Amino acid sequence: MLKKGELVSFRPDIKVVDCTLRDGGLVNSFFFTDDFVKDLYQANIKSGIDYMEFGYKASKEQFDTSKFGKWKFCDDQDIIDVVGDNDTGLKISVMADVGRTDFRRDICDKANSPIDMVRVATYINTIPSALEIVEYCSKKGYETTINIMAVSKSNDMDLDDALELIGRSCVDTIYIVDSYGSLYPEQMRRLAEKYLNIADKYGKNIGIHAHNNQQLAFANTIETLTMGVSYLDSTVSSLGRGAGNCPTELLLGFLKNPKYHISPLLKFIEQHITKLKEEGLIWGYDIPYLLTGRFNQHPRDAIQFMKEGRTDYKDFYHFLYDKEI
Amino acid sequence: MLKKGELVSFRPDIKVVDCTLRDGGLVNSFFFTDDFVKDLYQANIKSGIDYMEFGYKASKEQFDTSKFGKWKFCDDQDIIDVVGDNDTGLKISVMADVGRTDFRRDICDKANSPIDMVRVATYINTIPSALEIVEYCSKKGYETTINIMAVSKSNDMDLDDALELIGRSCVDTIYIVDSYGSLYPEQMRRLAEKYLNIADKYGKNIGIHAHNNQQLAFANTIETLTMGVSYLDSTVSSLGRGAGNCPTELLLGFLKNPKYHISPLLKFIEQHITKLKEEGLIWGYDIPYLLTGRFNQHPRDAIQFMKEGRTDYKDFYHFLYDKEI
Repeated sequence: MLKKGELVSFRPDIKVVDCTLRDGGLVNSFFFTDDFVKDLYQANIKSGIDYMEFGYKASKEQFDTSKFGKWKFCDDQDIIDVVGDNDTGLKISVMADVGRTDFRRDICDKANSPIDMVRVATYINTIPSALEIVEYCSKKGYETTINIMAVSKSNDMDLDDALELIGRSCVDTIYIVDSYGSLYPEQMRRLAEKYLNIADKYGKNIGIHAHNNQQLAFANTIETLTMGVSYLDSTVSSLGRGAGNCPTELLLGFLKNPKYHISPLLKFIEQHITKLKEEGLIWGYDIPYLLTGRFNQHPRDAIQFMKEGRTDYKDFYHFLYDKEI
Repeated sequence: MLKKGELVSFRPDIKVVDCTLRDGGLVNSFFFTDDFVKDLYQANIKSGIDYMEFGYKASKEQFDTSKFGKWKFCDDQDIIDVVGDNDTGLKISVMADVGRTDFRRDICDKANSPIDMVRVATYINTIPSALEIVEYCSKKGYETTINIMAVSKSNDMDLDDALELIGRSCVDTIYIVDSYGSLYPEQMRRLAEKYLNIADKYGKNIGIHAHNNQQLAFANTIETLTMGVSYLDSTVSSLGRGAGNCPTELLLGFLKNPKYHISPLLKFIEQHITKLKEEGLIWGYDIPYLLTGRFNQHPRDAIQFMKEGRTDYKDFYHFLYDKEI
């Protein structure tokens, strides 16, 4: 097995990417209060987080701006209102979904933008479109990533071809994404080995974005980082769609780089996350997500089940099972 | 790395040990309703679970029987009232803590008892006393285990000596116990390798009992089982002290042996576990447990913090930190 670094040392190449607003926005339609966003920005700076993802650059043609909070669209001015000239060590990231972004209109020259990195989310069959966005953003001066979603549904040959294609592009970082939270550490390590081989060949970074359906988001993240994966997505208290993501507080507890501090993040959790829970926002590990994860299915049925306040887990299991046969 | 079995196959040597009553009893002082216990027994049988641990054989001299439910003492007759002659594939287990059991008085011949296995929990410095109980129980006809607690606090040389001593005894199974939920998969694999070497040398089984302080109980369990660990402790919905244990429903989702069925367990969760939560019983992963786990400390401060309904995580972090320096 590949191994990079020791448990007691730290790797300076590690980057923690806070996706709380972006993945969390999928839970509350991006309606975060301004205080939440400003306090998160400050907490991230104090905690030594490397990137903060503010949300999506989603198309205003396709999505009704009155139905979503501003972080689905991430106008540069909205980011500037929070970060000013961002004279800090924290870089700013946004995500663009293939087919759901007017990137030529909405992404300007990096010189005029507070954004440092554009991450492009794609399924395996839309990689040429993803590369088009990456080439555009790279020329505009941004760091770029390609995040291949739902990789647990892809076959090995397609994935190999896709990784070669991406490897030859100008993208900086390629992400392993366990969209359905269905992958076990053993499978994650095999994937990481595959991605890291491409990284070595073409001089890329590899990132990981894990979901917590089987309480494996943190385990999968640290297992692959031990092998050389260096861009680590996490969210405060797992906030994210369905079972949520790798919790930043667990990740910072593991990382040994003295630049990281857990304490400001704990303060943020006290002030903001407990309130979200009290207000009834639903996310985080629960039985229905375990079941969709186990079946390697999209979490949408589990999210609906939770919204309806149902607890007939056995029936839900058989409902999911029936979809497979 | 040692490897036994494949992800798609199953190992017939695997045994799932349900510790819901025993570890869960530490949360509610063993006051389970009779319906809870009877339904759990039936669910375990239907789910293909291998052992059900009913609780402790605790000393009635040392503990006030009016302050605990009956499963802290596990009188044979109380077990018989649930299982009759237990004409099933499910074996019955109890735990005896070194120094807290009147084993000579309370553990009779196996021929006259519904119990199949006695598990002896010990710290590393009381292993001779643990071996005394094991020798006694083994002669009485029981399967036996030794569970070395708080192994994350032991030094390697002491542990090597202890494992040699236990290896030469008549015990059947030796348990890795991550009492504080502080061990990462990489550390767990190293421990498992050490224990499995002893198992090979002396013909023992190795078991694992994990805690979920860092959301790693399931990951650590499946990582070590992949290496050859075969006795797997779990509890329904993690029910157990502090952050709880490896959730049985996740474990059954992973195991490929067709004897295991998740559906009866899901029914049990619907009927009983959701009610316990509604009644205010507190267990399962939360920030305070993550922090004691990270500091490799006993969870008692975190349990107290949760009981008091506190959410000042940052202060709690500094309180734990101050205890270390």
